[in-house]
Amino acid sequence: MSATRRPPLGIPVDSAKRWTENYQLATQESGRLFLMAGDQKVEHLNDDFVGAEVAADDADPEHLFRIASAAPVGCFAAQMGLLSLYGRDYPEIPYLLKLNSKTHLVKTAEQDPLSSQWQSMSQVQDFVRHSGLKVVGVGYTIYPGSAYEAQMLSEAARMIQDAHAMGLLAVIWAYPRGKAVGKREQDSHMIAGAAGLVACLGADFAKVNPPLDDQGNMDAHLLGEAVAAAGRTQVICAGGSETDAKSFLQRLHEQIHLGGTQGCATGRNVHQRSQADAIGFCRAIHAMVVHNQSVEEAGKYLASS
Amino acid sequence: MSATRRPPLGIPVDSAKRWTENYQLATQESGRLFLMAGDQKVEHLNDDFVGAEVAADDADPEHLFRIASAAPVGCFAAQMGLLSLYGRDYPEIPYLLKLNSKTHLVKTAEQDPLSSQWQSMSQVQDFVRHSGLKVVGVGYTIYPGSAYEAQMLSEAARMIQDAHAMGLLAVIWAYPRGKAVGKREQDSHMIAGAAGLVACLGADFAKVNPPLDDQGNMDAHLLGEAVAAAGRTQVICAGGSETDAKSFLQRLHEQIHLGGTQGCATGRNVHQRSQADAIGFCRAIHAMVVHNQSVEEAGKYLASS
Amino acid sequence: MSATRRPPLGIPVDSAKRWTENYQLATQESGRLFLMAGDQKVEHLNDDFVGAEVAADDADPEHLFRIASAAPVGCFAAQMGLLSLYGRDYPEIPYLLKLNSKTHLVKTAEQDPLSSQWQSMSQVQDFVRHSGLKVVGVGYTIYPGSAYEAQMLSEAARMIQDAHAMGLLAVIWAYPRGKAVGKREQDSHMIAGAAGLVACLGADFAKVNPPLDDQGNMDAHLLGEAVAAAGRTQVICAGGSETDAKSFLQRLHEQIHLGGTQGCATGRNVHQRSQADAIGFCRAIHAMVVHNQSVEEAGKYLASS
Amino acid sequence: MSATRRPPLGIPVDSAKRWTENYQLATQESGRLFLMAGDQKVEHLNDDFVGAEVAADDADPEHLFRIASAAPVGCFAAQMGLLSLYGRDYPEIPYLLKLNSKTHLVKTAEQDPLSSQWQSMSQVQDFVRHSGLKVVGVGYTIYPGSAYEAQMLSEAARMIQDAHAMGLLAVIWAYPRGKAVGKREQDSHMIAGAAGLVACLGADFAKVNPPLDDQGNMDAHLLGEAVAAAGRTQVICAGGSETDAKSFLQRLHEQIHLGGTQGCATGRNVHQRSQADAIGFCRAIHAMVVHNQSVEEAGKYLASS
Amino acid sequence: MSATRRPPLGIPVDSAKRWTENYQLATQESGRLFLMAGDQKVEHLNDDFVGAEVAADDADPEHLFRIASAAPVGCFAAQMGLLSLYGRDYPEIPYLLKLNSKTHLVKTAEQDPLSSQWQSMSQVQDFVRHSGLKVVGVGYTIYPGSAYEAQMLSEAARMIQDAHAMGLLAVIWAYPRGKAVGKREQDSHMIAGAAGLVACLGADFAKVNPPLDDQGNMDAHLLGEAVAAAGRTQVICAGGSETDAKSFLQRLHEQIHLGGTQGCATGRNVHQRSQADAIGFCRAIHAMVVHNQSVEEAGKYLASS
Repeated sequence: MSATRRPPLGIPVDSAKRWTENYQLATQESGRLFLMAGDQKVEHLNDDFVGAEVAADDADPEHLFRIASAAPVGCFAAQMGLLSLYGRDYPEIPYLLKLNSKTHLVKTAEQDPLSSQWQSMSQVQDFVRHSGLKVVGVGYTIYPGSAYEAQMLSEAARMIQDAHAMGLLAVIWAYPRGKAVGKREQDSHMIAGAAGLVACLGADFAKVNPPLDDQGNMDAHLLGEAVAAAGRTQVICAGGSETDAKSFLQRLHEQIHLGGTQGCATGRNVHQRSQADAIGFCRAIHAMVVHNQSVEEAGKYLASS
Repeated sequence: MSATRRPPLGIPVDSAKRWTENYQLATQESGRLFLMAGDQKVEHLNDDFVGAEVAADDADPEHLFRIASAAPVGCFAAQMGLLSLYGRDYPEIPYLLKLNSKTHLVKTAEQDPLSSQWQSMSQVQDFVRHSGLKVVGVGYTIYPGSAYEAQMLSEAARMIQDAHAMGLLAVIWAYPRGKAVGKREQDSHMIAGAAGLVACLGADFAKVNPPLDDQGNMDAHLLGEAVAAAGRTQVICAGGSETDAKSFLQRLHEQIHLGGTQGCATGRNVHQRSQADAIGFCRAIHAMVVHNQSVEEAGKYLASS
Repeated sequence: MSATRRPPLGIPVDSAKRWTENYQLATQESGRLFLMAGDQKVEHLNDDFVGAEVAADDADPEHLFRIASAAPVGCFAAQMGLLSLYGRDYPEIPYLLKLNSKTHLVKTAEQDPLSSQWQSMSQVQDFVRHSGLKVVGVGYTIYPGSAYEAQMLSEAARMIQDAHAMGLLAVIWAYPRGKAVGKREQDSHMIAGAAGLVACLGADFAKVNPPLDDQGNMDAHLLGEAVAAAGRTQVICAGGSETDAKSFLQRLHEQIHLGGTQGCATGRNVHQRSQADAIGFCRAIHAMVVHNQSVEEAGKYLASS
Repeated sequence: MSATRRPPLGIPVDSAKRWTENYQLATQESGRLFLMAGDQKVEHLNDDFVGAEVAADDADPEHLFRIASAAPVGCFAAQMGLLSLYGRDYPEIPYLLKLNSKTHLVKTAEQDPLSSQWQSMSQVQDFVRHSGLKVVGVGYTIYPGSAYEAQMLSEAARMIQDAHAMGLLAVIWAYPRGKAVGKREQDSHMIAGAAGLVACLGADFAKVNPPLDDQGNMDAHLLGEAVAAAGRTQVICAGGSETDAKSFLQRLHEQIHLGGTQGCATGRNVHQRSQADAIGFCRAIHAMVVHNQSVEEAGKYLASS
Repeated sequence: MSATRRPPLGIPVDSAKRWTENYQLATQESGRLFLMAGDQKVEHLNDDFVGAEVAADDADPEHLFRIASAAPVGCFAAQMGLLSLYGRDYPEIPYLLKLNSKTHLVKTAEQDPLSSQWQSMSQVQDFVRHSGLKVVGVGYTIYPGSAYEAQMLSEAARMIQDAHAMGLLAVIWAYPRGKAVGKREQDSHMIAGAAGLVACLGADFAKVNPPLDDQGNMDAHLLGEAVAAAGRTQVICAGGSETDAKSFLQRLHEQIHLGGTQGCATGRNVHQRSQADAIGFCRAIHAMVVHNQSVEEAGKYLASS
């Protein structure tokens, strides 16, 4: 675990300096990233925020900010609009601007996924300047294998280059999806392909789904191919739907230590808990990701339940 | 009911100051918005403006302006073209520029809805500067779940950011629609999803249709999920087709006091009445929205009929 | 009949002054518009210009200019290309630049109509400046109900705003068309919807097809709904295919005096006649539109045949 | 035959002066244009350049330049890329930049034709300035009746206006094509429609296919309708596939003297011959087009074979 | 074999000078190009980088850079993102920026191929300036015969012109593909057509697949048509899937000496070997391409295995 990653090549010296500051801030000087994902209010509409298994706190978008401000997350990823509404009250959070989002209403069986960039990069620049928030980077989802792949790869490539030129990190959510991908979305070789693609885009982090074996079971060893393929682009796994906290930590530990990932991206597993539970859960993740603690050590931060 | 909403973050100080002035003007210093919707001449062509149940006054577009100038509406939403034709004679009205509109000719069963921005933001800026009108904000309709969702989300996001940078309010009409949505257009969970999406876009107000229960009946309690999901984005309900004035007020009272909405958006229910009736009706709505009066108190403003 | 229409709001004072001059020129200080339509060489290719019923003169595009220069038309609408070829010899004509055109080759049954703007507004501005021609305005055709409606409404809205900012009039040809419209193209309620839509776009004139009753017969009274819906946007009727001159005048008189239209747009009915006949025919129309003469009075200008 | 055509209206005086120089150069002061078409390496890939009937010389693209530099062509039309590779060695040739091209791989039965502009007009301007070549104009192919007609008409209209503003000629290849056109591609009335359309675009020359009668035979008289419809836009006929030199000259003579065309566009008929034959053939065409010679007189330039 | 190729016409003198320097660098002053292709991490995802036949080294993207820096390649082609991650450690490599890439997930049978430009040319310029890398040129893949051909030809043409204006080489990967091409992808006449098309685009090098005869066998003589058709655009063959080193050299020798190609583009054949083998293999290719050595001479550089 090293915090000495160098900035991307091909940007002005000042940008490189700002990028390094943002990298240190986002990785909490550990070189690993604990990204709290908060873009589901578009991606999943309100499905993730209400329900029998979901803490009542989660119905209010501010729940996300309350957690992110009290918990030691590396960055909190959300759409610029949410930040414009809540950011003033939570200036201490390191933010990642998620620049594209789509709803899950149109199913892949009906139409291949397309998610377009919302704000222009000059709007990003204005927002960063005028908000005074600690915006550490930008995020974008690509769907390799979609019929609309070309649009998204081009938009992502330009966004990354512009982000770096502003000194911002670039994180790519890479989800193979579409009729051509079919059931192979979480195939380990497919995911490795997506991770390698993200490296070619020049992103700093690739957020991928955890690969499954032929029986549909997660196996952290399967991540190895993706981590190798991504090279210097650091791989983090998406957290998926809510699960038992201990199992989550166990799985994360394996992803990092067996799979070679360098952090994690967690959304539902965090915000579907009550504020107190969520903060404890984040502390445990932080202990593991940033301080390299064991499952047992990290587990101590969990609220006893 | 509070009038102390803060401006969106991420815009210049001067813009924030103008935004606050526009917010106070549009909400009549109440923090609640009474939006008179006047965009149906495109959305519904002439269907709403003639007919046995429609006052003869309504055949003339100026009817809209006559009402809006004499009645205490928070803002009158219409296309820039109408304003360029009538605005000079009605400078006292607070206007909201509705920037996209489509006709209802192409049905959802034939093609998913797409509504594109008409004027560019630089044309908006020129119009505001040269017209001298009290333009308090802009409006845009999104159709989550449409096959063209990506185009509209991107255009809306950019419009909102630009509007805020000009000190203008941004109101999003959010109507889930398309083959993927089917009959769920007024499902309360779907509408909550749309309201949360609007918050992620950073709009100041989300205009949604009132949710229906499984039997297709309105129930103001069902709005609670949407109001929660929208967080600091204030939710207002569309008025729907014309109804009895008293029933309308009763329903609006429930939407506000049971559902938690913060105003209303009314079109046909206003302009399909004669000028005198419409003005009385608006006064009743204003009493309820801005002065928080009861159904009985507000009802006194209705023209006796 | 009044010539005191005020310029659109929202443009610089100088533009408003130029707009008023152009309005006076185009309406011949009558407030009514006699538009000679000369865009059919694209819209109908050569179908309108040769044939047993068509004067031999009409095979040559210059025929259009010869008529327009000798006859008292309010403006002659044609594509910029034709003006660049013939305008130097006919500087006395008030021109309207028709900015989009399509051929009739692809039928609506095969593909919904799409007509895109040809020259950019900055090319329009350059043309006006360098040609020295009396360009009074621009024209654009929209097809409400087409699957491509969104493209055309957006392009038209921007064109109108830019035209007004240059002091030019904006005339919209509004033809509901497409699979969703089917046989209702000339339904009076549909046409009223289109006319109201044009008002929302802010155009100065809406050119519509004359509505038909259920038996497919023209009845000028049916125009009333459209004229009311258009409000301050003035409605003029398209002339349609060639007809007997007297019948044309009778019909036009009814359109103006029973239907409330404020001028007419005539193409084939003019240019399919010999030069002498066409000029006489135009004088008759001018007498009726601009000088408010009766059918009998206007008929005196017709060449005896 | 006159060389006194005036420049298009609506461009700066300097541009008009350059346009006139280019017109004189391209028409060799005759007012008629002998255009050597060299865009088939894209349009027909290598089909036209090898084969039993094709001279071996033609396999090398330089063959085109060798001919064009030694033969008295009015202009040689080719893509900018070819000119960037060979132009330095052939500075004496008057060039026409063909700005769009497509392959013939996708057949009309599969998809309607679309050919998009390759270089931007600012790249054209840079090329003209930096190459020092005698670029007399630009060319563009439109396919009226294609499902993509709108894109091409808009692009062509803008290109023509920009070309004229640079003092360049504009030549439009106008080929009705697409499912809606079917077998009517060479119908004389259809071609006349295309020629008239080109006039509305404002091009200087329209290159059309020679019309066929009902039995599929060429008849130069059939060109009359197109020549009339094009008005001041001069019509030239495409040469078609290789044919006997004498027959070609006979046909060309008829096109000019019976059909009223003002030049010709020849590609395969020239370059599929050996260099010597091609040059002789061009001299014969030149004699007929520029010096108005008879078939017999012009025929003397043909290499005896 | 000559190193005296002249720069493209139509660019500023300074650009021409830089182009010549880049050409000399890329061709190692031989006039022939040994391009090491490293864009497969997108084009083939991870398929080329793992497997029983693939050296373990290849799993790591840095393998590509290790080879390219130690081996005498003319240029190493990869996406800008990879260069931004690894370029700082490998400043000695001459790079070619591959500007478009697509995955192979969507099969041609499902949808015709479309590959869009990733970074804008102004981003390319910024990258070149700020990276300090030896970027000798840019690359772009076109798919003639695809339903999306028009988009790619236009984008490629503009890219080439801009690249030359920056003094960069332009290499076009030309692969006929799509439903209209079917099984003719490696037909020699089809490939000749593609090569000629690339010349019309003005690229410096065309990278084509080796043509096959009717039995599906490679025959270097078949390249003659393509090399002739490309004229001054130099043709290099893609290497294809990994093969025995000696066979590769034999084939390359034939391509150059029988087929007339001027270099080669090799990807999988290089990087699927271990670092040592790959470097030896590259030395052999270099000996043949740059020093014109025989199969036997060049073979001496191969690691004995």
